[in-house]
Amino acid sequence: MVEVHKTLKLFSGRSNRDLAQKIAKECGVELGKVSVTTFANGEIYARYLESVRGCDVFIVQSVAGKVNDNLMELLIMADAAKRASARSVTAVLTHYGYSRQDKKSAAREPITAKLVANLMTISGIDRSICIDLHQGQIQGFFDTPVNHLTALPIFADYFNAMELENVCVVSPDVGRAKAAKKLADLMDADLAIMSKTRPEHNASEVTTVIGNVTGKTCIINDDMIDTGGSVINGVDALLEAGAKEVYVCATHGLFSGKAYERIEQADMLKVIVCDTVAVPKSRTRGKIEVVSVAPLLAKAVNNVFYDESVSELFDPDFQI
Amino acid sequence: MVEVHKTLKLFSGRSNRDLAQKIAKECGVELGKVSVTTFANGEIYARYLESVRGCDVFIVQSVAGKVNDNLMELLIMADAAKRASARSVTAVLTHYGYSRQDKKSAAREPITAKLVANLMTISGIDRSICIDLHQGQIQGFFDTPVNHLTALPIFADYFNAMELENVCVVSPDVGRAKAAKKLADLMDADLAIMSKTRPEHNASEVTTVIGNVTGKTCIINDDMIDTGGSVINGVDALLEAGAKEVYVCATHGLFSGKAYERIEQADMLKVIVCDTVAVPKSRTRGKIEVVSVAPLLAKAVNNVFYDESVSELFDPDFQI
Amino acid sequence: MVEVHKTLKLFSGRSNRDLAQKIAKECGVELGKVSVTTFANGEIYARYLESVRGCDVFIVQSVAGKVNDNLMELLIMADAAKRASARSVTAVLTHYGYSRQDKKSAAREPITAKLVANLMTISGIDRSICIDLHQGQIQGFFDTPVNHLTALPIFADYFNAMELENVCVVSPDVGRAKAAKKLADLMDADLAIMSKTRPEHNASEVTTVIGNVTGKTCIINDDMIDTGGSVINGVDALLEAGAKEVYVCATHGLFSGKAYERIEQADMLKVIVCDTVAVPKSRTRGKIEVVSVAPLLAKAVNNVFYDESVSELFDPDFQI
Amino acid sequence: MVEVHKTLKLFSGRSNRDLAQKIAKECGVELGKVSVTTFANGEIYARYLESVRGCDVFIVQSVAGKVNDNLMELLIMADAAKRASARSVTAVLTHYGYSRQDKKSAAREPITAKLVANLMTISGIDRSICIDLHQGQIQGFFDTPVNHLTALPIFADYFNAMELENVCVVSPDVGRAKAAKKLADLMDADLAIMSKTRPEHNASEVTTVIGNVTGKTCIINDDMIDTGGSVINGVDALLEAGAKEVYVCATHGLFSGKAYERIEQADMLKVIVCDTVAVPKSRTRGKIEVVSVAPLLAKAVNNVFYDESVSELFDPDFQI
Amino acid sequence: MVEVHKTLKLFSGRSNRDLAQKIAKECGVELGKVSVTTFANGEIYARYLESVRGCDVFIVQSVAGKVNDNLMELLIMADAAKRASARSVTAVLTHYGYSRQDKKSAAREPITAKLVANLMTISGIDRSICIDLHQGQIQGFFDTPVNHLTALPIFADYFNAMELENVCVVSPDVGRAKAAKKLADLMDADLAIMSKTRPEHNASEVTTVIGNVTGKTCIINDDMIDTGGSVINGVDALLEAGAKEVYVCATHGLFSGKAYERIEQADMLKVIVCDTVAVPKSRTRGKIEVVSVAPLLAKAVNNVFYDESVSELFDPDFQI
Amino acid sequence: MVEVHKTLKLFSGRSNRDLAQKIAKECGVELGKVSVTTFANGEIYARYLESVRGCDVFIVQSVAGKVNDNLMELLIMADAAKRASARSVTAVLTHYGYSRQDKKSAAREPITAKLVANLMTISGIDRSICIDLHQGQIQGFFDTPVNHLTALPIFADYFNAMELENVCVVSPDVGRAKAAKKLADLMDADLAIMSKTRPEHNASEVTTVIGNVTGKTCIINDDMIDTGGSVINGVDALLEAGAKEVYVCATHGLFSGKAYERIEQADMLKVIVCDTVAVPKSRTRGKIEVVSVAPLLAKAVNNVFYDESVSELFDPDFQI
Repeated sequence: MVEVHKTLKLFSGRSNRDLAQKIAKECGVELGKVSVTTFANGEIYARYLESVRGCDVFIVQSVAGKVNDNLMELLIMADAAKRASARSVTAVLTHYGYSRQDKKSAAREPITAKLVANLMTISGIDRSICIDLHQGQIQGFFDTPVNHLTALPIFADYFNAMELENVCVVSPDVGRAKAAKKLADLMDADLAIMSKTRPEHNASEVTTVIGNVTGKTCIINDDMIDTGGSVINGVDALLEAGAKEVYVCATHGLFSGKAYERIEQADMLKVIVCDTVAVPKSRTRGKIEVVSVAPLLAKAVNNVFYDESVSELFDPDFQI
Repeated sequence: MVEVHKTLKLFSGRSNRDLAQKIAKECGVELGKVSVTTFANGEIYARYLESVRGCDVFIVQSVAGKVNDNLMELLIMADAAKRASARSVTAVLTHYGYSRQDKKSAAREPITAKLVANLMTISGIDRSICIDLHQGQIQGFFDTPVNHLTALPIFADYFNAMELENVCVVSPDVGRAKAAKKLADLMDADLAIMSKTRPEHNASEVTTVIGNVTGKTCIINDDMIDTGGSVINGVDALLEAGAKEVYVCATHGLFSGKAYERIEQADMLKVIVCDTVAVPKSRTRGKIEVVSVAPLLAKAVNNVFYDESVSELFDPDFQI
Repeated sequence: MVEVHKTLKLFSGRSNRDLAQKIAKECGVELGKVSVTTFANGEIYARYLESVRGCDVFIVQSVAGKVNDNLMELLIMADAAKRASARSVTAVLTHYGYSRQDKKSAAREPITAKLVANLMTISGIDRSICIDLHQGQIQGFFDTPVNHLTALPIFADYFNAMELENVCVVSPDVGRAKAAKKLADLMDADLAIMSKTRPEHNASEVTTVIGNVTGKTCIINDDMIDTGGSVINGVDALLEAGAKEVYVCATHGLFSGKAYERIEQADMLKVIVCDTVAVPKSRTRGKIEVVSVAPLLAKAVNNVFYDESVSELFDPDFQI
Repeated sequence: MVEVHKTLKLFSGRSNRDLAQKIAKECGVELGKVSVTTFANGEIYARYLESVRGCDVFIVQSVAGKVNDNLMELLIMADAAKRASARSVTAVLTHYGYSRQDKKSAAREPITAKLVANLMTISGIDRSICIDLHQGQIQGFFDTPVNHLTALPIFADYFNAMELENVCVVSPDVGRAKAAKKLADLMDADLAIMSKTRPEHNASEVTTVIGNVTGKTCIINDDMIDTGGSVINGVDALLEAGAKEVYVCATHGLFSGKAYERIEQADMLKVIVCDTVAVPKSRTRGKIEVVSVAPLLAKAVNNVFYDESVSELFDPDFQI
Repeated sequence: MVEVHKTLKLFSGRSNRDLAQKIAKECGVELGKVSVTTFANGEIYARYLESVRGCDVFIVQSVAGKVNDNLMELLIMADAAKRASARSVTAVLTHYGYSRQDKKSAAREPITAKLVANLMTISGIDRSICIDLHQGQIQGFFDTPVNHLTALPIFADYFNAMELENVCVVSPDVGRAKAAKKLADLMDADLAIMSKTRPEHNASEVTTVIGNVTGKTCIINDDMIDTGGSVINGVDALLEAGAKEVYVCATHGLFSGKAYERIEQADMLKVIVCDTVAVPKSRTRGKIEVVSVAPLLAKAVNNVFYDESVSELFDPDFQI
Repeated sequence: MVEVHKTLKLFSGRSNRDLAQKIAKECGVELGKVSVTTFANGEIYARYLESVRGCDVFIVQSVAGKVNDNLMELLIMADAAKRASARSVTAVLTHYGYSRQDKKSAAREPITAKLVANLMTISGIDRSICIDLHQGQIQGFFDTPVNHLTALPIFADYFNAMELENVCVVSPDVGRAKAAKKLADLMDADLAIMSKTRPEHNASEVTTVIGNVTGKTCIINDDMIDTGGSVINGVDALLEAGAKEVYVCATHGLFSGKAYERIEQADMLKVIVCDTVAVPKSRTRGKIEVVSVAPLLAKAVNNVFYDESVSELFDPDFQI
């Protein structure tokens, strides 16, 4: 009869190694050694350079940027860990690619967010740690445990530290109203909601503001900024509606296409995003500012590994 | 070598036999014969009284009222059909019980809506036809096809026929804003959104109206009316905010607790619900009016059975 | 490298909290804190009020009375425990509802006992502790471990303490003969078997006694008493066949319909049941007596948790 | 758009080719061509010599004799059929090996009958046709449809044709009483049950007869005869208890060990078995007589293939 | 009762649309309409523009080039087809990416070829048509049917038409010897095998030729050409060993890295590849020649759809 | 909170108890007590005679000889262990029966090696330790971890100790060339490959030697010797081609049919096999010599149990 031990091993895919390093540091461990390469023919190859037998393996990956490459890399790393007899495999999925394709909005569409959940599970991932999923219902796409964290308290702290006055949190569209309300509650701020309508056929879409923003400091909150188009339209609509000034915060800064250029030319004061998706340093010298979720994710990793509920350390909305 | 044939057989659980009868009539078939009884000890027993071998079995059930009894009845009927060699089993789930428990909002909660999907699948249900799910993401809880219908065009037709003027569709809370917007678009109406806040700790919740409703005919749209409490608060808030008059429409009329009594005493003009959940005739003589989804569901059943895409017959939001 | 620990947490559904309390006491633990409520619309909601992360969760539930409500409650509690990262979930299923629907006896019937096993497994239950299943084969409905206990030694002790003479254990029907024989063997008693026949078409069923009971103290043993009808007929048949006096014992006292009233008026001396199904105190002042299985179940729970085979402490028929 | 056709193809393993031939003849088809061989190293190899693509493949096999060889042969044939794109694979399992290991009767036993069901399912068998399973609950070991037939009406016809008088059907042990009662009911005969007891420790087992058999023509009915030991003891016990004469009938004649020799020397008049397990012609010249289940199985095969419920053609206990 | 029909619908991913067009033409159908796009953020979106309900959907995709993008595109298209109620989904996987990672050759490696099989299955793919898999064992990675075709007869025809004399088929390494032997048999040619060895530590790898090639026309056959490096080394080794001239044929022309340039400068006469992986027209003006597998794949597609075994039309090595 | 312990329990099936004993001794444990018997009717029964609750159970079995009996015995032992609450079940599968049926080589064949993997997994086997699988791809037939060991270093040591000169390792056919090359590399020896061809239709197969063996000491290496036919042909061909002398080594000595007799009369000097398949002592007095893999397997068992990567202790080709 032998005592059973367990070991925390944190590995990083190639999509967001900086964040993985920070999480490792917060957790008080070294990043595990793994060789991940891409062959000339485009295939990805992964091999752990240290034993993972009996270990609790955590893989940090951001399914953004080269979305499909990064997703496959995660799945391949999970397969290798499972076959190398890891005790458990947890995906620290800092950005959940395809999260917006979470239901059929038209006939004969896929539900790719569910497909991703199935791919992860079949590859041997036993648990996922996610942050600000496009919809909380994505948790239910898994039959395995999902720890769904939120960066909203980080944003609340950020703006509270600025001691702004007469603040109104604004949802960029009606579907996101619930999260915006949560942030407003955390900041004791007002709430407004924007709604897009197409007044006449063939006319271009118009963004209307529901609620009063006159003279207020507005903070648009979204889960992600993609090409930046809709958030910039939102900023314009708010200023037109009488807002004093506009900030934008979003957990995931995808900044696709010409997003960086467009944002620097737009009329918001600042765009605050988290480091869930890697943002090049060179892009953070203008309006874009990055706050780190590493302490939050590190707490969740330790929490999971040590089997201790530390939910009391967190905001009540942090779910364990 | 023999030609393969298929036969449509439509059966009804005991939760909403009237609706099942109407669907059968619209489909041009007789309701199939099945004996469903409850033993003295509370166990449910089902037996098909006609062969279902090789047939496409559709089971109409509304998981409302005695939620758990009706759910188990559906699962038992599915098990019996599968073991009796049905070619396929489709649940015509006119109300999806537990649909609001679709994500974890607090630590250590279940995701019962996903659990229900798993229970249905393991019982042998190959496909589901649903209507106005609390969240469209519930489709993704299944790996089998889900036809997700909506009663919004039915409500739009109903109100358009009344030739109301200066109409504003109102979402009862921020989470439901997207559907309300869809109805507003179908009716070329304005949109307003209600938001509940608790101004101070220990104070009672206050409903604020985001958007302008002064002098307008408001139509609150929700997916379901449960105890009626929140919708009645909404009516009061709208009238206080200057609305001229208020109608309420909701797909699923659960009318739990004292809902019937409270609604008759409240200040809305009418409450329109569908027959997805059975409403006793005696309850439809006051403010409550019932419109039928039988034609819509019958079209979907035929559609599925005849393997023909009839999506063009429907509103673009009707998904096949 | 960290040592792995485990923690026993015993929770109770609402169907048989008294028994759960007794088991907890015997196990030397407190009942875990969990909030289980029923909403106005009939849906059940469960939330653990203490961490179950990494714990071995045991859920005591009796799927009797409101059979479907109690079953769903168990499934929902299992789903919540699994999603809250319990290390394992064991159902202490003190009564297995639907156990009599364990095979198809007629065409197009369900096998609901198997369905229940599937529902339990898909909900995240890793193991079950059961007692006097209607048929032992139900163990095989699971691919997960089942500990199948029996109350027969408890009944043997009970009657042996009475120092009855000339005892004959009687099976109430031919299907139950094997268990009756086991009890007879434990008590060194004779065995008789009753058989129901319908002598002519349209005539009512007649119970015949196979074996000699003249002048004997008869003990009818069954796995459950439902409406009591068949056991009362059995008592009458035995007395008519010359039995001196009749006792009845059964593990599960469902007492459906008018069972309590009918039993008090019937001619057996006593009816002994276990507390696997809750019996109101008020009902135990006449012929009905309740003996507790709490020590037996507590031993099994500890056994499972401590990974020690204590099968030697039990009767050889007790299976670990 | 093309019409879908289906084709019935009936193949035989090597365990009971005579029966398969008879079933084919009754079904009006030729036995399909398949090469099944055993290599020098003991491995079995199967290859279909005609296309099974899109066909409904039925494989007749008796898992008796070389139990494990015959089981593996069935599984391999199923695998090959599935990979060759059969539309469905049905096992016509004329004897279900390991059916007696259907529950744990002692600690740390397997439930091999469930294991067999799992092996069949994972190999691609979609449906099973079985006959007189040791326990009907074995149906529930499958999540796929099982058609469970019974040879009892065949035995009833056989004995009714003999115009015996004062007949008593006897169950060889208490566990089999229910089936014996069914046969008694079909023949309007009396019922008796035998019970084995060990009066004192270390004494040998004694068979007692429960019920009156004096002067009667007894028919012992069992599901299978294995070594013949217990049935011969039963015959002796009945004659000692005053029976006039004894017949034995059993669906499955395994005749293991010295069964043939012992039976010929024993005191029953005849032993009637079905051809579910192959009995060499040379063994049927004495007391053993074989009646064929081919017409029954052929009806079931056609029934399944033609998707028509022909349950009305059968005894009500024949389940479709 | 309605006759069941089926419809063949052939769709193409974006990786090899030319081949899909040719297959469609050979099958006598139009390519189905599907919209497949990549969003700015790198996510792929697919939507069928015509009904697939009840249809047999075939998706042509080559998992090469942007390997991960093309794989995900296939999986997403499968998910959408399944949810849109396709009767079956067949992947016509003209190149199986990751096929070389088919076993663990070192500790803590993945088996990505198995992972790909699992991803395909979980996404709803019911069957696969593949061609010259790196190892035939990959068929066994699936539990669903795989039709594994080979282009060897196409190469045999190609070279036979050239009426070369004194031909020797050469395997580029020992692992590929079996396939080379098959081609040699089809052409009545000799066989030689090359072997790579590293004579001393730190020395570079040396290719030795096993067998006599002096004065012969050598045809190197491989399943795929990746960067071309090893095949060019092989050509050099053969010429050094006295070969008269060297041709190269390979089913899959990946031509990664600088393969095109290197091949044009190397000493083989010609490189014949199939169109399983798209080769730009501009690259086929020098040594590289492309032969089409469209007729072969079209036959397989029709074969599968019409449920007719046409194996007799093919070489015996063509498996149905 | 209790510390979790684990216990290694090593059990043996009946196919190769000697090897199991040796492994136990090397591991420093006693073989666990289990009763495995075959009933008169051919069914196998297994029961653990000591608790396995919470233990890591390793079952040593060689699926050779009575292939199907030994396979079923393994599956039954796994089922019993799983139901008796073993913490994990590892098959130490010293010979993998059916490993040569690892792909479809002709239409309508099974892939029995994959079937075996599925049967093992469904029976509750969590992990497998195998040695010299016919093809390494069989690892990918499992989704559970497989430790694939090789006896090649044992053979290298054996022959190196003989200090032979001018050695050439010979592959008996082209399919096995890769492993022969590995052995040649381990021994710094030359490599030759044999190829079977049928020069004309109806002529008998001819074995040609590819590579130069004149005057060399040849060592044929194969994964298994079955009837011995092909290896004896190989010996003859090598001697005819000028080899000085021939040794044969193979991991698995099946010695089917008349293999023993044929080998003793053939012209190789020695045949070295491992004890993965039991060879009767009486057969090892002539040319056949047995070397033990017990130390290798024992290291792997300990390795798995103690969760320590000891891959560094092994040859790099030994995979953990």
